[in-house]
Formats: sequence, structure tokens, C-alpha cells
Amino acid sequence: MIIVKKFGGTSVGNVELIRSIAKKLAKAYHRGDQLVVVVSAMAKTTDNLFNLAYEITKHPSRREMDMLLTAGERISMSLLSLSLLEEGISSISFTGSQSGIITDDHHGNAKILKVNAFRIHEELAKDKIVIVAGFQGVSTSKEITTLGRGGSDTSAVALACYLGADKCEIFTDVDGVFTADPRIVPHAKFIPEIGYLDMLALSYSGSKVLHPRAVEFAYRYKVPVEVKSSISFAPGTMISNDEVVKDSPMEERNISAIAHKENILRYQIEPSANALLLLDKWHHEVFKLNMLKQVVEIYIEEKYESEIDYLLNESGIEVQGKERNIGFVILVGLGMAADPAFMAKILRLCEECRIERLSHSERSLELMLPSALVARTVTILHHEFFGE
Amino acid sequence: MIIVKKFGGTSVGNVELIRSIAKKLAKAYHRGDQLVVVVSAMAKTTDNLFNLAYEITKHPSRREMDMLLTAGERISMSLLSLSLLEEGISSISFTGSQSGIITDDHHGNAKILKVNAFRIHEELAKDKIVIVAGFQGVSTSKEITTLGRGGSDTSAVALACYLGADKCEIFTDVDGVFTADPRIVPHAKFIPEIGYLDMLALSYSGSKVLHPRAVEFAYRYKVPVEVKSSISFAPGTMISNDEVVKDSPMEERNISAIAHKENILRYQIEPSANALLLLDKWHHEVFKLNMLKQVVEIYIEEKYESEIDYLLNESGIEVQGKERNIGFVILVGLGMAADPAFMAKILRLCEECRIERLSHSERSLELMLPSALVARTVTILHHEFFGE
Repeated sequence: MIIVKKFGGTSVGNVELIRSIAKKLAKAYHRGDQLVVVVSAMAKTTDNLFNLAYEITKHPSRREMDMLLTAGERISMSLLSLSLLEEGISSISFTGSQSGIITDDHHGNAKILKVNAFRIHEELAKDKIVIVAGFQGVSTSKEITTLGRGGSDTSAVALACYLGADKCEIFTDVDGVFTADPRIVPHAKFIPEIGYLDMLALSYSGSKVLHPRAVEFAYRYKVPVEVKSSISFAPGTMISNDEVVKDSPMEERNISAIAHKENILRYQIEPSANALLLLDKWHHEVFKLNMLKQVVEIYIEEKYESEIDYLLNESGIEVQGKERNIGFVILVGLGMAADPAFMAKILRLCEECRIERLSHSERSLELMLPSALVARTVTILHHEFFGE
Repeated sequence: MIIVKKFGGTSVGNVELIRSIAKKLAKAYHRGDQLVVVVSAMAKTTDNLFNLAYEITKHPSRREMDMLLTAGERISMSLLSLSLLEEGISSISFTGSQSGIITDDHHGNAKILKVNAFRIHEELAKDKIVIVAGFQGVSTSKEITTLGRGGSDTSAVALACYLGADKCEIFTDVDGVFTADPRIVPHAKFIPEIGYLDMLALSYSGSKVLHPRAVEFAYRYKVPVEVKSSISFAPGTMISNDEVVKDSPMEERNISAIAHKENILRYQIEPSANALLLLDKWHHEVFKLNMLKQVVEIYIEEKYESEIDYLLNESGIEVQGKERNIGFVILVGLGMAADPAFMAKILRLCEECRIERLSHSERSLELMLPSALVARTVTILHHEFFGE
């Protein structure tokens, strides 16, 4: 059985954690599983490298940033390889390039074009554990690229797809997916199984468990993914094709979970040719983007503020409005689209939550409101749809 | 093999058509298939009955309307049963109630709670073709209900689900699903297979081939559905779980089709308690519903104009704005969400299409524009994404 296991930055955050992961990997290895282990850079490493570069220049070249940042995974993967040897297991570490993740040439936010990981197969055949640097790839012109936010999740799923792995396990600092964020709703329920599409809607809506891009990849290529705790290694949430069909009534609304997003920044700019050029250049994640006749609304996370301010200024685009602390609460599930009575019900329930907008897509109902009221709104809705 | 076949109003629009369907059903019957045939009322019958009622009163009781309208399917199903007997095949017709479609008590727009169709099994066992009235059900308090728009499609899929049918065939006046409406784009491509979710997004976006509710039902219960021509009986578009995975590049945008909607009416009203009550009462389809802090925007088809005008007036709600001839063009597919450069590209392509809004969901990119420019916009986008 080939299993791809991915460990994020907090899971490999220090040597103690890396050692404990090595011990657990050793057990799986001795059970006979063929293991491919995708690692992120140790927590804070990437941010530290970022800061170093920004101390030197406010606008570092993307190519050199990719070169710099990819050092992070080299550190964590070699430390893991060393720890495995302490457990008596031979392993080999590969960069994104060595593992055959071929991307386009968008430095900082590259997309995977194909995976050509024959070297992994060769090493697995030699009974080695293969450790792969997540987040990295190589362009067709042999330049080092990075996959942007969520990149390591995407690396893991792409490798699982290419290798025909039986499962892709994403280890993280939570136990899996819940009906709402347990930090806000302490009695939120653990979800043992969820379909790709609900997971995708959740990820787009602000659930940080798994990056939407990785979910989309898993869904397209039908890779079974499990999200689980890197501390307990206990069974987590399985993400796969099977929709959980409830008994009855047959056409009932099927709310899977509630996602939220806090502290979003909104820019309003004029929809000029310059604005379109800005959108072309923008390589970071955008949470939401609406274009109306008179105004383009860009919703992004606060961490991108200085970068977008620079670009807006450089492009000579006049900012018509800039607002902080916008929050979103999103109900994810089937059967809510354009149901007027249901939308009326939600507005009544959230009467005191200062809802500014309510809109719907095929699979979600989205409330925009002040960030400070997000927790309260999630609590009210969770109580209504999932009980105590 | 149990097959559910559904024929819509235009497919059973006159005696000639009904006879020809009977002949084709006879062939399938002699091949050994067990057939359950769901029929709508003959084209225009439902509208005529509606008009008769509205000649008597502007606001007929919903219960009596259901009683009246359900007469329509009785006519078509008995005519089909008679035609089958002419072909030497014994059949039996069932109303929604007799076929065991149990609904809630929302007259005019009931939802299916469960299906209890043991009588169908009994009659199939006697080698009969079972003809079922689409669009109808019976509430738990034994009242006759109708399922609202798209009801017959939903009846067929629900029965296929209950019966564990091998396939649910929806016969209609087109050959299946195309990359765009062939009346607008003559070289639009036929789509032989499409996943439930793309079909769902298409249906919500205005594709009239299959009602979103029926697609949602099929998706939840994994009923394989084929949409095909009632004239040619040629193989149509199969709707099922399989996503068509394109070769490469792996993370490419995957645009399945382009949908559109013309001549939508927009009402803008104040978001008062009265407005919420109106939404509770509104039992027809809403194409889109946005609630902003200052205004509720309701997008509906023009045919509901007199009804909503009456309700607004009755509720004493002041209409802030009413606009006609709004159009929508929707790109359906995976990988478009919040991609700024892609959205900029679309706006450039459609520079002369007077786009008023551009927004995105997990699976679609929606343009709002004047209805008169819909055909042109569909043509431009189809040319860009599907070629000549």
C-alpha cells in the first residue's frame, strides 16, 4: 500500500516534533506500507526568510524569493531523514525538482503542469522512505518555482495522484473537520466523512484545514484524502466521493458545516484598464472579487496590505474606499440556493448580527458582516442547525 | 433492467407524438426492459388550466390549483396507456398519490419527503409498463400536491432512486447538453458525459435542459441520468459521477459549458420585516436573491411579474427599483474561483458587452449584463474557450 503523508510547518516545528514523527513513520514502515512523506518548512521559517528579504528590499524579485524560500523545506526534510536513520530506516530526500513536480513559470504562485516522479518509484522499490519537499516545483525552463499558499497540500495530493497512492494523509494541528470552528463553538461536531465538494466549499469559505487548491486537485483526480492530527495520529476526516445521504426527508436541506473568515480588508477601486492590469499582476490569494459597473471590490487578507498598497500606488490607481475588519460566515451544503424563505429565516435568526450582505451560490449561503460579530453569528447558526 | 423514462410536455404535445412514443416504448419492452414511464401534462395544458383559473379569480387557492393542474397528467398518461394497448402492451397508469410520492404540504411547490412505490413493483412483476403522472404527490395529510417547476424531472429521478433503476432517461426536445445553447452558438459542441456538479451549476445558471432540483436529487442519491431527444431516441448526455479528467496540464481551468439567462426582472425593495414575510410567502422560483444592508434584490422571470406586483402591493412594500431585460452569462467549471487575472481577461474579452457585474462562486463565473447583449457575449466566450 502506497501512502503519501504530508506534515505542515507546525507539525515539524521543532526537533522534538520531527523525532516523534520519525518514530510514528517507523511503525507504519514496519507494517509494510510504502511511504512518501511530504514536508513543509518548519513553522516560522518561511516567514523569517520573507522578513530577511524584505529587510533588504521592499520588492524582491520573485525568482530570487523562490530560490530563498525553498531552502526552508530542505532543512525540515533533511532533519526528518536524519531522524529516520536514528530509527534504523533508510530514507532519501528530494527537492520539488528532483521529485518531478513540473510547473508553469509563475514564480511565487506556480501551477502544476504534470508530475514525473519516476525517481520516487525507484527509491520506494529499494524499500526506502521517500521524503519530498512540499511547496516546490521546477518550471519547464528548469527554474525553481514555488506553488504559493497551500502549496504543500497540493504537492502531496499531486504526488498521491501520480503514484496511484491508496491514500493521501494530511497531518495538521487539528483532529479533522468540524461542523464549525471548535475555538468558537466548543460543542462543534467532528465530521468523520465529507464529500470533496462540501470540503471545497468549506475551504473557499475560510476553513483553514485544507487549501481549496489541494481539494480541487483531489476532487478532479479522485484522490482519497484524510485530514488528521499530527499529534495523536488518530483517525481523522476522510474526504472522498461519498456524499453522506441522510435518511429522510429526501429533499431536505443538507447543511454540512459552517465556515467563517475574519479581518478581511476591502478595497474599492475604479474598473479601469489599470485596474485590470493590477489584477493580472496580483499573485496572492484573493478571498473574493466583485466587479460592478462603477467599482471593483477586492477582498483580501490583511497580511497583503502593504503589497497591494504599493501596487495601487505604483499603478496610479485611485482607491475609492478601503475598509477593515470585514467578516464572513458561510453555511455550506446542498439545497440552499435561492430559497427565499430560508434566507428570510437566516436574516431573522441573525437580526442582531448587523448582516451587510447575504448572497448564495450552488452550494453555500454567505453572510458579510462586521468581523467582531462573526463568532456570535457562527454560534447562533450552529445552535440552530446542529443543536447543542 | 429497470429503466425510468420521463417525457415532458412538448414530447407528449399531441396524439401523433404520443403514438410514436408508444411504438418506441414497445420496442424497449420487447427487449425485456422493465419500464416506468413518467409523463408531464401535454404542452400548453398546464398553462391553459392556469388561465382558466385566473379568469375566475386573480388569487386562486393553492390547494384548488393543485387539484386542477393535476388533471393535466391524467390526460396524457391515459392517452399513452391507450396507445400502448394499441401496440398490444398492457400498462397501468398511476397518479402521484398512487405511485407513492409523499410530500410536505406546500401546495404548488411541495418537496418530496419519501417514496413508497410498492404498487409500481407489483405491476412491473405482472409485466406491465407502469405510467406515472409526473409533477404530482400527496401530502402526509392526504392532500394532492404539486412539486412546482421541474416537478416531473424530479418525480422521475425520485422514482428511479426508490426503484433502484439502472437509469433514468429524461426525454426532451433537444439532443442533450451542449457547450452553449446551439440556437446562439451554432457550432456548440455536444457533451456526451458531464458530472452531476457541472450539470447542477449549469441548471442553476439557466440551462433549461434539466431542472436543478432534479439534478440535485440525482446527485444526492447517485442516480445515473441520461438526457436525450424524444424525437430521435439517439444516445444523449449521460450525467453521472465521472468527471472527465483532461490530460494536462494538471491544474488547468476546466470550463465545461456556458449557460445564459435572458429577460430577467429585478426588484429592489427595502429589507424590512415585511420584505422577509414576502420572501416566506413566495413559492415560485427565484433566479437570484441578494440582500444588502439597504436593499433586497430579487431576480425573477418575467412570467411572475403580475404575481409579485400583487404581493408587494398587498404587503405595503415600497418598490425602490424595478428593472427589466437583465441578462446573465455564466461560465461553468472548476478552477475559476477568485482568479484575478482570469477575471481581468474575461472583462477585456467582453469589453463591448456592457458587463454590469462579475462575480464568482466555487464553480462558476457570472456576468450580469443587458439581456440584448447575452447572445453576443456567449458567442465571444464560446469562441475563446471552445474554438470554432
